[in-house]
Amino acid sequence: MTSPQSLAVGLIGAGRMGSFHAETLARRLPGVRLAAIADPAPGAAKALADRLGCPKTYTEIGDLLDDPEIEAVVIVTPARTHAGLIEAAARAGKSVFCEKPMAVTLDEADRAITAAHEAGVVLQVGFNRRFDVGFRAAHEKITAGDIGTPQLLRSLTRDPNLHDPSRIPPWTIFLETLIHDFDVLRYLNPGSEPVEVFAMADALVRPDFKDHGLLDTAVVTIRFDNGAIATAEANFQAVYGYDVRGEVKGSTGMLTLGDLRSSHLTSYGAAGAAAECVSYDQDLFHAAYVAELAEFTDSVRDKRAPSVTGEDARAALGIALAAIGSIATGGAVSVGDVRESPVTVRP
Amino acid sequence: MTSPQSLAVGLIGAGRMGSFHAETLARRLPGVRLAAIADPAPGAAKALADRLGCPKTYTEIGDLLDDPEIEAVVIVTPARTHAGLIEAAARAGKSVFCEKPMAVTLDEADRAITAAHEAGVVLQVGFNRRFDVGFRAAHEKITAGDIGTPQLLRSLTRDPNLHDPSRIPPWTIFLETLIHDFDVLRYLNPGSEPVEVFAMADALVRPDFKDHGLLDTAVVTIRFDNGAIATAEANFQAVYGYDVRGEVKGSTGMLTLGDLRSSHLTSYGAAGAAAECVSYDQDLFHAAYVAELAEFTDSVRDKRAPSVTGEDARAALGIALAAIGSIATGGAVSVGDVRESPVTVRP
Amino acid sequence: MTSPQSLAVGLIGAGRMGSFHAETLARRLPGVRLAAIADPAPGAAKALADRLGCPKTYTEIGDLLDDPEIEAVVIVTPARTHAGLIEAAARAGKSVFCEKPMAVTLDEADRAITAAHEAGVVLQVGFNRRFDVGFRAAHEKITAGDIGTPQLLRSLTRDPNLHDPSRIPPWTIFLETLIHDFDVLRYLNPGSEPVEVFAMADALVRPDFKDHGLLDTAVVTIRFDNGAIATAEANFQAVYGYDVRGEVKGSTGMLTLGDLRSSHLTSYGAAGAAAECVSYDQDLFHAAYVAELAEFTDSVRDKRAPSVTGEDARAALGIALAAIGSIATGGAVSVGDVRESPVTVRP
Amino acid sequence: MTSPQSLAVGLIGAGRMGSFHAETLARRLPGVRLAAIADPAPGAAKALADRLGCPKTYTEIGDLLDDPEIEAVVIVTPARTHAGLIEAAARAGKSVFCEKPMAVTLDEADRAITAAHEAGVVLQVGFNRRFDVGFRAAHEKITAGDIGTPQLLRSLTRDPNLHDPSRIPPWTIFLETLIHDFDVLRYLNPGSEPVEVFAMADALVRPDFKDHGLLDTAVVTIRFDNGAIATAEANFQAVYGYDVRGEVKGSTGMLTLGDLRSSHLTSYGAAGAAAECVSYDQDLFHAAYVAELAEFTDSVRDKRAPSVTGEDARAALGIALAAIGSIATGGAVSVGDVRESPVTVRP
Repeated sequence: MTSPQSLAVGLIGAGRMGSFHAETLARRLPGVRLAAIADPAPGAAKALADRLGCPKTYTEIGDLLDDPEIEAVVIVTPARTHAGLIEAAARAGKSVFCEKPMAVTLDEADRAITAAHEAGVVLQVGFNRRFDVGFRAAHEKITAGDIGTPQLLRSLTRDPNLHDPSRIPPWTIFLETLIHDFDVLRYLNPGSEPVEVFAMADALVRPDFKDHGLLDTAVVTIRFDNGAIATAEANFQAVYGYDVRGEVKGSTGMLTLGDLRSSHLTSYGAAGAAAECVSYDQDLFHAAYVAELAEFTDSVRDKRAPSVTGEDARAALGIALAAIGSIATGGAVSVGDVRESPVTVRP
Repeated sequence: MTSPQSLAVGLIGAGRMGSFHAETLARRLPGVRLAAIADPAPGAAKALADRLGCPKTYTEIGDLLDDPEIEAVVIVTPARTHAGLIEAAARAGKSVFCEKPMAVTLDEADRAITAAHEAGVVLQVGFNRRFDVGFRAAHEKITAGDIGTPQLLRSLTRDPNLHDPSRIPPWTIFLETLIHDFDVLRYLNPGSEPVEVFAMADALVRPDFKDHGLLDTAVVTIRFDNGAIATAEANFQAVYGYDVRGEVKGSTGMLTLGDLRSSHLTSYGAAGAAAECVSYDQDLFHAAYVAELAEFTDSVRDKRAPSVTGEDARAALGIALAAIGSIATGGAVSVGDVRESPVTVRP
Repeated sequence: MTSPQSLAVGLIGAGRMGSFHAETLARRLPGVRLAAIADPAPGAAKALADRLGCPKTYTEIGDLLDDPEIEAVVIVTPARTHAGLIEAAARAGKSVFCEKPMAVTLDEADRAITAAHEAGVVLQVGFNRRFDVGFRAAHEKITAGDIGTPQLLRSLTRDPNLHDPSRIPPWTIFLETLIHDFDVLRYLNPGSEPVEVFAMADALVRPDFKDHGLLDTAVVTIRFDNGAIATAEANFQAVYGYDVRGEVKGSTGMLTLGDLRSSHLTSYGAAGAAAECVSYDQDLFHAAYVAELAEFTDSVRDKRAPSVTGEDARAALGIALAAIGSIATGGAVSVGDVRESPVTVRP
Repeated sequence: MTSPQSLAVGLIGAGRMGSFHAETLARRLPGVRLAAIADPAPGAAKALADRLGCPKTYTEIGDLLDDPEIEAVVIVTPARTHAGLIEAAARAGKSVFCEKPMAVTLDEADRAITAAHEAGVVLQVGFNRRFDVGFRAAHEKITAGDIGTPQLLRSLTRDPNLHDPSRIPPWTIFLETLIHDFDVLRYLNPGSEPVEVFAMADALVRPDFKDHGLLDTAVVTIRFDNGAIATAEANFQAVYGYDVRGEVKGSTGMLTLGDLRSSHLTSYGAAGAAAECVSYDQDLFHAAYVAELAEFTDSVRDKRAPSVTGEDARAALGIALAAIGSIATGGAVSVGDVRESPVTVRP
């Protein structure tokens, strides 16, 4: 399991999500080892490394990128640092798995993709829903023509926990939450690209934080080049559970995706039937999180392109930026016309 | 709607269930009219007739049977009176719809069936589940061979309301409740007949009434002549709703039946998902109750045998009596060996 | 049932939907009688009247409105005639149940409402979903505060049958189909009103008919004055069944509505689990169609306002016209700014 | 992960199920290592050990039991060898996890339990369903009194794959399949013990193999000492999937368990709604299989009794033997009266 021939992966970012990926790298992937962890926060990398038996830690991310033993990195840092780290890692010859979003401007995304191509390294972005058994089966059925041509799509994300708004950057709902839905909509409308976007959003969960630029509720309508009309929807506080669903209505059928239930137990009492719901993203998509890192490490080993690429991530970012542009202008926006987020929110 | 050519039906028994059937006869069946109501209880027939615009009432059932205008009767009286009333009605030349059970001994059942045959009248017994769209579709799929040969069957009834035990005759759970399940099992295993029966039962809802002969919980295992093994189960107090379900596992597939939900609304809150359940038999099977009377009146008009006959009712009664015999003896019993209920319950 | 004191209702329009309502009026509502039918098509009223035992027919609608015996009318004619007929009926002193939409311009709607008010007659519009047990329970839970403040809503309608496009007037998807969803969204966001509308639509089912102004697929986003963002969605050909669903996410919970299944039967075979779906509106909402006419006739008898009014219908029309305006202009539109449909579709 | 302090576990039996447990021991349990594999079949242990990086293999099981490095063993051998191996392992001072059934006679079971007690080692038997999140939650709710006193229980197992009947020992359906259901019924009726058993069984999937003693379909009714009546049901060929379900109806509520669906994807087409089903036990209970070994190794490390014990396994065996006795005699049998399987099947 820990033979010298195993793939040495370095983790950049030892926070909550980084720790989760670290466990997968350390324990769940045969032929893969977690060889080093870098995190600028004092002690963070060390504590995680000790827990998982990882031999090396760095507080300078650059030192990990310089480590010749490391063949691939997993980047789990704040979103605004992603594109730069992808570029730096690619130049250091490391293959890169980066959490979404891959960048916050289209120019950054272009530079990161170019850097990976020039270095000949693998670049995969963390759209884990593509590795969920249900979403994947839906994609395959649609590709096989089982529901004809997609006409109407829907993808939604509702997070049970509203994080501290002061720590949430502006436009988070589009760049970090809905980015999943934008990717899912492209995944479930294969071969088509988004052309036009309209968005409505508001601070309904915490109206007091709207002044700080926090939008916690958003609905985005997207027209694709095959005519299909898609809706992406997000909200930052679903007290009932972690709610991720999807739907595709095609010319000859429909697919629905998503199940909130946390187990196959149903309780019946005087008030009727009841079932408990999933509360955590990591519960809902546990197997998918493992599968995406398996895909990444397999791609590195096999020297092939992963099934979800930097180009996919750039396309989802394009939708997110168009949605942000739509909020800023109040009208529909063509995808590609908005290359970066405006500084301020429309009052 | 009330032309002289319409079929004149007389109702015998103006209690809760009789009133329900009366409303169907008076309002829901084109070409049918509720022409008379008989009930020995003072005022009962009159009150119901006034409400529904029924022109004639009787306190002597025999007077209704003598009424030449009446072509068919619907019998909704206590179970022990059923067979005798079927015989009397048949001799008076009336077609008969009788609530289940058609009789409480096999000899009574035989006499009632013979009387109907000799008089050339229609005899249908109130197995309404056969007219429910789900149970009917299941029967048709099984008949069409969609699930191959039935191997395992299940039918259950759980009533939300425990009635006053002092008014419940002994063996009610077998003769009046499980009789539905016994019929359903025959309906879902078409062409096969029950051969052997084993029953376990107890007073678990109201242990204090076991001394009075009340069994409120029962599980009956039945072997059919095609090898299929069936379970029928009943319980007299399901606080969560009116619970009727079925299941057939065949050599090439399975069918499940039953849905407790009272509507398509699901509520999600901090405790998870919740849905309300159906509380009343008449809600769950409303359309089926109407459809069985439509079948009966159509059969009378068309002078044809109904889709559920006295022979079907006798077969279900045979299972019920075998189950009672199994309780009395503690062992498995062959169907047909027990022709009437023993007087006392095994201690 | 047919006493002189019963409420005499006249039906205007003996087509498919008119015949359906006629059956309810003739047979299902105690204290109500179908007293006359008017339809300009030769023989249409007569054929229906004969089938249901209705004593009078007219080919001139005005003659029915002049009939002093008639206390209330049910209007089931083409949409563009609705408002004029409501006005005429109100002036003739008849209470009015009118199928949706009540009008196709806001001015027409205003005139119809005023006429009913001035005549002191009941005016109810055919938003049958409000009488469905699930939608009604959802409305009540929301009104009771069970899910807190609504933040996100969804209502959709997908019809299994694409009618002959040459017979479908322009904007039908908004004025006749989505009008239901617009009303549902108001019903499920009680006390709030729509303020801004954006729509995307296309001819995806039959692209060849787009030139004729047929839009068969539409997604409408609506902002309400309590901040809630709603999506209404329609499509004219769902081969899998009649698909009507709803969803409301509030600050403390969520409700989902809709169930495509036609019965409680589930079939399992080598390909997995399967269930049949409802194909007809009248199957899905049968009880609701009866209940809305019961509400109407009860309101007439009790001389009270019905639970769904002309004002409700005008509000739904306002959303439909704003959606049409959004299609015509390509941008978001304020509710109330568009008072009638433009003549042509945006290319 | 592979520090000397980690718990050294030896695997006995390198077949399909043994390989599955081996992978869990080698990769999924922090602080645990797969230290040796024994299998008499030439090359079997070696092939598995090479794949998983396990350092030692034996063809003599006794040699593994003599290995002083090994602290605990996992026994995955044919059922008839279980009890003897438990005894031998216990005498060698090894803690034991043994696949079900722990024994095939009550005397063997008693000796194995005594040996483990005398040696002071942990003995856990492979009732994995107790570690499934749904079954566990049901047990906890029942223990907490959420559904009152259990009155009716059901547990069923239907296996999609009929194995070669010539390789299936007599009474397998009771001793190896239904043993899970018998344990589940005890788990879901906590604090109560079975008292009386009646069984019906047949060869319905492969009637031609009934002569060889193969029973492939069985229904067992069990009376518990709290009055509850339970049904256990098994069948050896469910073409639609791996079907494991449970149900408990108590005095104040009901719980249902089991979901055949393999993902949250539902497909809708002209034939209605469809969903794919789970085909493999290891898919359905993957997490439960890992959790039971985590419980075992934690118990060994913490020197405490596991949550499912030899006594639990003996109780389930007692039900299985009573069911076999019921088949042999055709009547109801008291639990405890049958201590071993009779040699032949009742004709």
